[in-house]
Amino acid sequence: MQYSFSEILNLNDRFRRNLINSVSGFKSVCLIGTVNNSGTTNLAIFSQILHIGANPPMLGILFRPDSVERHTLENIRQNGYFTINQIQESFYQQAHQTSARYPSNISEFEAVGLTPEFIMDVDVPFVKESEVKILLKSVDEQVIKINGTILLIGEIQELIIPDTSISDDGFIDLQKAGTITSAGLDAYYKTEKINRLSYAKVDLPVTVIL
Amino acid sequence: MQYSFSEILNLNDRFRRNLINSVSGFKSVCLIGTVNNSGTTNLAIFSQILHIGANPPMLGILFRPDSVERHTLENIRQNGYFTINQIQESFYQQAHQTSARYPSNISEFEAVGLTPEFIMDVDVPFVKESEVKILLKSVDEQVIKINGTILLIGEIQELIIPDTSISDDGFIDLQKAGTITSAGLDAYYKTEKINRLSYAKVDLPVTVIL
Repeated sequence: MQYSFSEILNLNDRFRRNLINSVSGFKSVCLIGTVNNSGTTNLAIFSQILHIGANPPMLGILFRPDSVERHTLENIRQNGYFTINQIQESFYQQAHQTSARYPSNISEFEAVGLTPEFIMDVDVPFVKESEVKILLKSVDEQVIKINGTILLIGEIQELIIPDTSISDDGFIDLQKAGTITSAGLDAYYKTEKINRLSYAKVDLPVTVIL
Repeated sequence: MQYSFSEILNLNDRFRRNLINSVSGFKSVCLIGTVNNSGTTNLAIFSQILHIGANPPMLGILFRPDSVERHTLENIRQNGYFTINQIQESFYQQAHQTSARYPSNISEFEAVGLTPEFIMDVDVPFVKESEVKILLKSVDEQVIKINGTILLIGEIQELIIPDTSISDDGFIDLQKAGTITSAGLDAYYKTEKINRLSYAKVDLPVTVIL
């Protein structure tokens, strides 16, 4: 199939939304845990997590301007801290269900059946069921001018990963940790490692890292 | 394993780079095709592709401030157009090899053994071997203040996808198209679909989309 710009504009909304959301490739889907001023925990699924920098360690999250995700953004603005929890196949349906529009006095943890876990000094909830958990502190927020999307940047304060998933050189094998990936608005995939490849150099063939 | 902020800062550079690059989750890896003013084609692997919006259809690409990727950014600034080509397992090693620091008068297509293909009116190369190809026009560029990373935004001008990968509702099954995903700086994974899930609603259980 081939679609031109004008053909894409003429598609019905649902078709276009599915098409354009899936064509960007696989995504780093995760659950973001926050808490509001009244102490109600919030949990929401996000699929646009970016690597911003390693030193200091920073991740970015892209927030749509007009969505249910706003509870998460408001909570982060109030509290300053949030958690990113990777998703495993064992609870992907509960993770997806957090995207329903629960009112702000209902905790998605309770609504979908996941367990809030408070393991650091800060009062934001991790997802107990998750194997890879990150505590972040909000350090910047920037509006993407072209459509009002908001890029929130968090500094990593704490990383929790299974011992068995980490290599001698710091690489985390997300397949070993059971982390899944998503595509489009509603599709979830598990992964199978092909290989790690050596740092590419001109005039040297790529080799597999064992 | 558990790493605090200060422990992360004290890791050696390579370990920290691998750790923080892999903890953000699976990525939408692809090849970006461009051409410079002298007519030399360029091909480079990128792993930070974002969905910006569906109407009009826009994708974003994050460029590190100080990297080999700069040839791609310079070419897009000169020419205005570029292609995004998803990667299949059959040529992932060639795709990885494009990250070597070839001089600007050498085409990575020739250096790594991939085939430039000119299928639209514009003079930027697609990757003939790729199953999912996108032509984009640069429409905006924005500096991410916190570390000088550049977010380039492209409007989709043309989409080419295999007939067999597209559903009635516009969803593209990237597994059927053979698209792979990456993690960290050098790991490549194939995928296996778990399920698509229905639009989540409060008080309704999630169902599988068949």
